[in-house]
Amino acid sequence: MDIHDLTRRLQRDNGGKIVLVVADGLGGLPRTPDGQTELETARTPNLDKLVERGVCGLSIPVLPGITPGSGPGHLGLFGYDPLQYVIGRGALEAAGIDFDFGPSDVAARGNFCTVDSDGVITDRRAGRIPTDTCVRLSKKMQAIRIDGVRVFVEPVREHRFVAVFRGDGLKGDVEDTDPQTVGTKPLEPNPLNPESRRTAEVAAEFIRQARELLNDERPANMVTLRGFSGRPEIPSMQEVYGLNAAAIAVYPMYRGLARLVGMTVLPPPEDLDRQVAAMTAHWASHDFFFLHYKYTDSTGEDGNFDEKVRHIEKVDARIPDIAALNPSVLIVTGDHSTPATLKSHSWHPVPVLMSAATCRPDAETRFGEAQCLRGGLGRFDAKYLLPLALAHAGRLEKFGA
Amino acid sequence: MDIHDLTRRLQRDNGGKIVLVVADGLGGLPRTPDGQTELETARTPNLDKLVERGVCGLSIPVLPGITPGSGPGHLGLFGYDPLQYVIGRGALEAAGIDFDFGPSDVAARGNFCTVDSDGVITDRRAGRIPTDTCVRLSKKMQAIRIDGVRVFVEPVREHRFVAVFRGDGLKGDVEDTDPQTVGTKPLEPNPLNPESRRTAEVAAEFIRQARELLNDERPANMVTLRGFSGRPEIPSMQEVYGLNAAAIAVYPMYRGLARLVGMTVLPPPEDLDRQVAAMTAHWASHDFFFLHYKYTDSTGEDGNFDEKVRHIEKVDARIPDIAALNPSVLIVTGDHSTPATLKSHSWHPVPVLMSAATCRPDAETRFGEAQCLRGGLGRFDAKYLLPLALAHAGRLEKFGA
Repeated sequence: MDIHDLTRRLQRDNGGKIVLVVADGLGGLPRTPDGQTELETARTPNLDKLVERGVCGLSIPVLPGITPGSGPGHLGLFGYDPLQYVIGRGALEAAGIDFDFGPSDVAARGNFCTVDSDGVITDRRAGRIPTDTCVRLSKKMQAIRIDGVRVFVEPVREHRFVAVFRGDGLKGDVEDTDPQTVGTKPLEPNPLNPESRRTAEVAAEFIRQARELLNDERPANMVTLRGFSGRPEIPSMQEVYGLNAAAIAVYPMYRGLARLVGMTVLPPPEDLDRQVAAMTAHWASHDFFFLHYKYTDSTGEDGNFDEKVRHIEKVDARIPDIAALNPSVLIVTGDHSTPATLKSHSWHPVPVLMSAATCRPDAETRFGEAQCLRGGLGRFDAKYLLPLALAHAGRLEKFGA
Repeated sequence: MDIHDLTRRLQRDNGGKIVLVVADGLGGLPRTPDGQTELETARTPNLDKLVERGVCGLSIPVLPGITPGSGPGHLGLFGYDPLQYVIGRGALEAAGIDFDFGPSDVAARGNFCTVDSDGVITDRRAGRIPTDTCVRLSKKMQAIRIDGVRVFVEPVREHRFVAVFRGDGLKGDVEDTDPQTVGTKPLEPNPLNPESRRTAEVAAEFIRQARELLNDERPANMVTLRGFSGRPEIPSMQEVYGLNAAAIAVYPMYRGLARLVGMTVLPPPEDLDRQVAAMTAHWASHDFFFLHYKYTDSTGEDGNFDEKVRHIEKVDARIPDIAALNPSVLIVTGDHSTPATLKSHSWHPVPVLMSAATCRPDAETRFGEAQCLRGGLGRFDAKYLLPLALAHAGRLEKFGA
């Protein structure tokens, strides 16, 4: 018996609402050993107030020492073991552009790239072509026809697109054609098992036709495909947790992730103010709201400590409007750490705060890594955040007599 | 390899004695976010002294966010994974009335109820008839005869009894007949799988005869059955941990739980003083003593914060007598939290103290949730408490060379 067996059996709908605010890449590192992290540096009076009345702690996204990508990071926060449910990159991209990704589909992430007359890659991203060029070229590739398979080509942004093959007998275990370096030709889409042979043939034919179609284009005269993957089988949050969940995210990736666990994806708002407004507008219709804020991660990836601090403060400023909706449980956390000093995702545990009337308060009065280390939630696997939220919202019955 | 494989292999009998005092529902919540919990409020000089010399921490009974009933809560404390060993309610009730529950038995918890002339339930508990009426009616139902099956009917208290069916080919997967509401007829005891079909037939015949026998009774003129279950297969504490264990509990439920893991159940004492006296009297005969105190839970369930505090202080007052027996390891904890503010069991981690000459002491000098959060035992799954106790008692060899 595992946690999902329990939540399937014990869930109850008492009308209590849960808000999960994800400041992407929230966790950080100090610039000097005796310094403060981005979160500790930020002025966050509203988050601090939530910690003071509630409880804080640190979550481990996957396993100690493992740095998660956005997929595993979010799956954990949504209450799914990221080691049990693995989402391919192609599946994620497809879901992230509102593509209606079916159970017999295989998706791959595509890059427009530049090759020389010998077919050798000279730019893996074709000079990051503008998104409108990406749209035009993707449309051009929609002319590709392959026997027995429906082919979809959808632009993402800049040099990125998604290719989806729909048909019988397709499996997603195919090697990337992107060699991850310049100066060599694209690789062959080799199947990793017999069941994926047909997908590999389809991909090879797709690439052949794409090259013909793009022959006269500059700089985007070729494509690479990677992250081949079918749709992962993930039970919905409604089934597993009894939650009618809604996602409010500006970036497509996070909407895609939310869709894979069965959330209703609200029309993408343009900024944080409108995200909060959307939550307010849809408050009555859902039990669970996932609000995603990207810029705490992207500024961390840029190595811009001060800008990450500023974006944390922007999240803080919107907290009163969310708290005013009076959710039973309000959580603020990240899907992983993105220390500006590392300019990348990291494995460090992630600060979490939980505010609810049923919290056992701890002594902490500030939201920061040092405080979370001492906080009452302790250190826990991210996959248990949602069961904890359900418990604090009174949405779980007792287990056993 | 799991913890039981290790303890089976590494156990040694060095004569060291372990005492586990369970103050049921010990963990709590403050009445206001800046207030103190029941345990923090209580004056507990003796428990504090144990913490000062020993070590404290927080245990998670089942999994984060999961609120345990008494069954899973105690199984964890006895060193059994409550997700691996699941005890049906009927089995628990049967064990709890000193019933010698056999491997081919199926037990159900019975309620005397009131039905009108159409057979519709008007009172699920028959007005909570006095226990002596329950005894008389249970005896009356012992006249029930069913081909090929031995039927036992044992009173519990008020409107509650236990029915046990003993015979070949009985499995416990049968639906409750208690509809959990008034205004409808009792449900049919439907089998949940083919192996339980015979049990369902036996149960239906039992109910038919019971109705005839109770026809002229008022208000208890009908019965419902629920929690059908066979005896769970749980290896004994002797086998798994090398402990000759004894249980000293006033309430039948906890004696029943102890019996399921192979403890010797000492004659039920009437109060805490006599429980401690019983421990003293049987000190030489056992390696492990489980002493259960109910009222910290029942006062919590009643929402009576002050009374729960008082009962914690009553436990504290008896600690010197237990410590005077000089056990190798003395543990005081709960099977779960029962915050008076919630009037119910809860998922919050449970305070634990362990006193032993081999403790690595922490800085804490008081027994309370805030102290346990910082304590040297950290936060751990309850199922590891017993291996920790064995270790501190010197009853486990080294693993590996």
